[in-house]
Amino acid sequence: MRILPGTSSTELGLNIASNLKIPLLELEFKYFVSGESYLRINGSVENQEIIVIQNTSPPQEKNLMELLLIASTLNELGAIRVHCLVPYLCYARSDKRRLTGEVTSHQITLDLIHKSGIDSLITANVHNPEIFLNTNKELKKYNIDCTQLLITKLEQSKGKDWFIVGPDKGRYNEVRNIAQNLSKPFATLDKYRDPHTHKVSVQDTGFDCRDKDVVIVDDEILSGGTVFAAIEILKQKKPSSITYFCVHALSMEEVFDKMKQVGVTDIISTNTIPRTDIEQLDITQLLSESIWENFL
Amino acid sequence: MRILPGTSSTELGLNIASNLKIPLLELEFKYFVSGESYLRINGSVENQEIIVIQNTSPPQEKNLMELLLIASTLNELGAIRVHCLVPYLCYARSDKRRLTGEVTSHQITLDLIHKSGIDSLITANVHNPEIFLNTNKELKKYNIDCTQLLITKLEQSKGKDWFIVGPDKGRYNEVRNIAQNLSKPFATLDKYRDPHTHKVSVQDTGFDCRDKDVVIVDDEILSGGTVFAAIEILKQKKPSSITYFCVHALSMEEVFDKMKQVGVTDIISTNTIPRTDIEQLDITQLLSESIWENFL
Repeated sequence: MRILPGTSSTELGLNIASNLKIPLLELEFKYFVSGESYLRINGSVENQEIIVIQNTSPPQEKNLMELLLIASTLNELGAIRVHCLVPYLCYARSDKRRLTGEVTSHQITLDLIHKSGIDSLITANVHNPEIFLNTNKELKKYNIDCTQLLITKLEQSKGKDWFIVGPDKGRYNEVRNIAQNLSKPFATLDKYRDPHTHKVSVQDTGFDCRDKDVVIVDDEILSGGTVFAAIEILKQKKPSSITYFCVHALSMEEVFDKMKQVGVTDIISTNTIPRTDIEQLDITQLLSESIWENFL
Repeated sequence: MRILPGTSSTELGLNIASNLKIPLLELEFKYFVSGESYLRINGSVENQEIIVIQNTSPPQEKNLMELLLIASTLNELGAIRVHCLVPYLCYARSDKRRLTGEVTSHQITLDLIHKSGIDSLITANVHNPEIFLNTNKELKKYNIDCTQLLITKLEQSKGKDWFIVGPDKGRYNEVRNIAQNLSKPFATLDKYRDPHTHKVSVQDTGFDCRDKDVVIVDDEILSGGTVFAAIEILKQKKPSSITYFCVHALSMEEVFDKMKQVGVTDIISTNTIPRTDIEQLDITQLLSESIWENFL
């Protein structure tokens, strides 16, 4: 068993390998002037089981392509099994064909991963776990819930009276789980997305969080349309503070700046998408455990 | 039979469809804030044969991913056969494993294209036609030689005494073919690439092109390292003029500026990579004919 840190996850790969005391395989890479990637795997892989650690965070297609190139090559070079750890799985949002002719990129991405010779995939907080787990049964899949890290973080905080809020009903189970773990109340707002215009509207569901420390729990953030609508509704309920948490912090810095301007006290994410402008909870230990459990 | 112009080749797709009088399928697309693509195929594809026209010019991985997404979806929606026309085929340069562990992306890219449900592929001036044609035999492949367009262009020029030069021996057959068509002399220089450093050196092969109008014929240009070395050697031979031609003009504008500074009179490419800063020969007619011959 060896760990191969990919182009987009060098540091995470090194940390997980050191955590689990698994020997490393080195990847040599550079970019041609055209922008295409040159990749070379240094070290023997024949009859070895390899874990590739490669995020498909932005630029998604480049990072995914490099994962597919690495996996195919490991197979060509005689690896007996290839696993991959992809903290943020790209293209997972388009998982249902709502309108005729729509491309459901989630399933196609999983197929590409499997067809490139990957046997199993660990990812974190995939957009729709049910669809994820029921697509391409030949590819073994594990979805790690990083909100565990949030629970630990909230448990450790002192003098705060938490109230957990989901910005839409899709987050109900996740939000209930966090609230139950903390023995705190929770609620979800109601979100509607127009399938044609993709416009989102958010409605109040009549709960009371006055003088509570509200935590909005999200899976990923892009433009923040839903969240800003949610924040407006929450502010009218006069909470003591509003904390915003998301697993995958994909958005531009401006979105977080604007969030602070409208009254959000703290912004936290995991480092499934590493960045330095907000507080991040480290996924290394959690993902190491998942590799230990599922691959070793 | 229908033509579907992809995201990266809308204009070319419309022109070829109009040329061949083949009905169009419309592709709706937009980009999410994360950068990921939303795609939707408008119109019925069931039991239809579809030709997707999608370049994999820069950003290569994004354009390739969109091709794979479109092709997979056409298959899901019941198309009976999917062909594709990809004027510039990305990742075709890394076609041989020179050092242990190197990723040979050319073969993997062809496999990805085939596995996404594409039956046949037309491309232009692929880096190594022999390897291209002998890889993945299940995918029908056609490599169109766009230097035909250069021959026509040179034939029409008046008062010029052409001498055709290949910057390396790999271009020998191509250069000889052009020269024979024009009944003009030709020669190739000698290029060596160090497999470790990837550094290129070019050597004279002792030919005489004094007072001739030299045309350097290249397949694609990136940093221009080889070409600038070739130009230096050619200048010492006192030609009347130096024209530089490449099929795929992938390089930055600066490279062409520098080429003019060191004495290149004319720079010409095909529009397999569309751009406006140099003269381009239009591929529409040539590629339409290839579709007519191979798919209709």
